[in-house]
Amino acid sequence: MYRKASYGSELDHLIQLLSKLPGLGPRSARRAALQLIKRKDSIMRPLSTALAEVAEHVNPCSNCGNLDTIDPCHICSSEKRDGTIICVIEDVADLWALERAGSYSGKYHVLGGTLSALDGVGPDDLNIISLIERANKDIVTEVIIATNATVDGQTTAHYITDRLKNCHVAVTRLAHGVPVGGELDYLDDGTLTAALKSRRPF
Amino acid sequence: MYRKASYGSELDHLIQLLSKLPGLGPRSARRAALQLIKRKDSIMRPLSTALAEVAEHVNPCSNCGNLDTIDPCHICSSEKRDGTIICVIEDVADLWALERAGSYSGKYHVLGGTLSALDGVGPDDLNIISLIERANKDIVTEVIIATNATVDGQTTAHYITDRLKNCHVAVTRLAHGVPVGGELDYLDDGTLTAALKSRRPF
Repeated sequence: MYRKASYGSELDHLIQLLSKLPGLGPRSARRAALQLIKRKDSIMRPLSTALAEVAEHVNPCSNCGNLDTIDPCHICSSEKRDGTIICVIEDVADLWALERAGSYSGKYHVLGGTLSALDGVGPDDLNIISLIERANKDIVTEVIIATNATVDGQTTAHYITDRLKNCHVAVTRLAHGVPVGGELDYLDDGTLTAALKSRRPF
Repeated sequence: MYRKASYGSELDHLIQLLSKLPGLGPRSARRAALQLIKRKDSIMRPLSTALAEVAEHVNPCSNCGNLDTIDPCHICSSEKRDGTIICVIEDVADLWALERAGSYSGKYHVLGGTLSALDGVGPDDLNIISLIERANKDIVTEVIIATNATVDGQTTAHYITDRLKNCHVAVTRLAHGVPVGGELDYLDDGTLTAALKSRRPF
C-alpha cells in the first residue's frame, strides 16, 4: 500500500519513474532519489544530461541492430572487423557480453528477441529478413548462431538455421559444455550430457 | 574486470552514472540502460526532465530539513499540523515512512544522520542546534525522538535528550516492542526483553 505523502509532486514523479527501472522497486527508488538529491552536482545533473544525450543520439544500427551514435555502427563500419562472419545474438546485451570477452572479431546481427508462441513473437517481429539479406551477400561465409541456451533461444536458432539453408553459408552455433571454472558436481544433467557428447581429443 | 567494449562513450557514461545508484551494479545498470533506450519516450526523456526539475526545485527546508519545492516546506507551513510537537528523525526517508503510516500530525526535524565516532560524525555535523532553537520556542511542548533503534541511533537519541534538558519540553521516544504481525518465536532477545519491560494493562 502506497499512501500519498506530502512530499512534492516533482519528487513523487521522479520516484515513480525510477521505480520502473529494472532492479529498482518503490523502496529502492525512494532511496535512489534521496541519494541523487544529496549528490546533485556529481550524479543527478550529469545523469539528466546523459539520459537526454543518449535519447537523442543513440539509435539502433540500420544494418545490424547494435546501438550506437553513428549509423552504420562502429562495428559495421570498421575495416578491422572480419566481414565474412556474422554472429547472431538475441539482444544488444549479448553483443556487449561477447565484446567484453574480446575474442570475436567478426560482425554481429541483433535479432531483438526470440520467437515465442506464448508472448506472440513471430518471425516478422525479429530482424530475420535483414539477416537473410546480409547472409546472401558474397562476402559472408559463416553465420554463428549465439542465441541463449533457453527453449525459446534454441527454437529461434533452429528456425534461423532452416531459413539460412539456401544462403551458401556455414551455419555454426556456440559449444555447449562445462563452464570454465565450473565443478561437475554442481552442473545440471543437460550440460553434462552435452559436454560428454562433444568431447574432444586431449 | 570491465573491458572497454565498442559501444559509444555516451552510453558508457550513462551506464557508469546509473551504476552509482543504490541497488544498481554494473550489470543491472547495463540492463537499465537498454530498457531505457527501448522506452525512450515513455521513460527515458521524462526521467531526464524529472531529474533536472528535482535538481533545480527541490531543496531542504531551512526550518526542518525536509525536502520540498517550497521553503519552509509544506509540513512546516501547514496550519493543520500540530505545531506543539516535533518528531526528530535521522533522514528524510524516515519522515516519508512516518507520513505513509499517516498517524502523526505534528511537525518534523530531520537530523541528517546520526552521531558516529567511526565515521567521524559529531554533533556539529547534524541539525542539532536548530532543533534546540525550535524546542526553545514557547509553542513547542513535546519532542519525540524517533531515531533508529541502532547503536548509533540510540547514542544520538541520548545525546539529544541531554541537550534538550533545559528546554522545558517533554522528551519522549518511540515504544520498543513486538512488531504488529510479528511472532515471538522469531524475535530477538532484546526486543522481547523490551516488550516485557514495557508491558501494559490489557
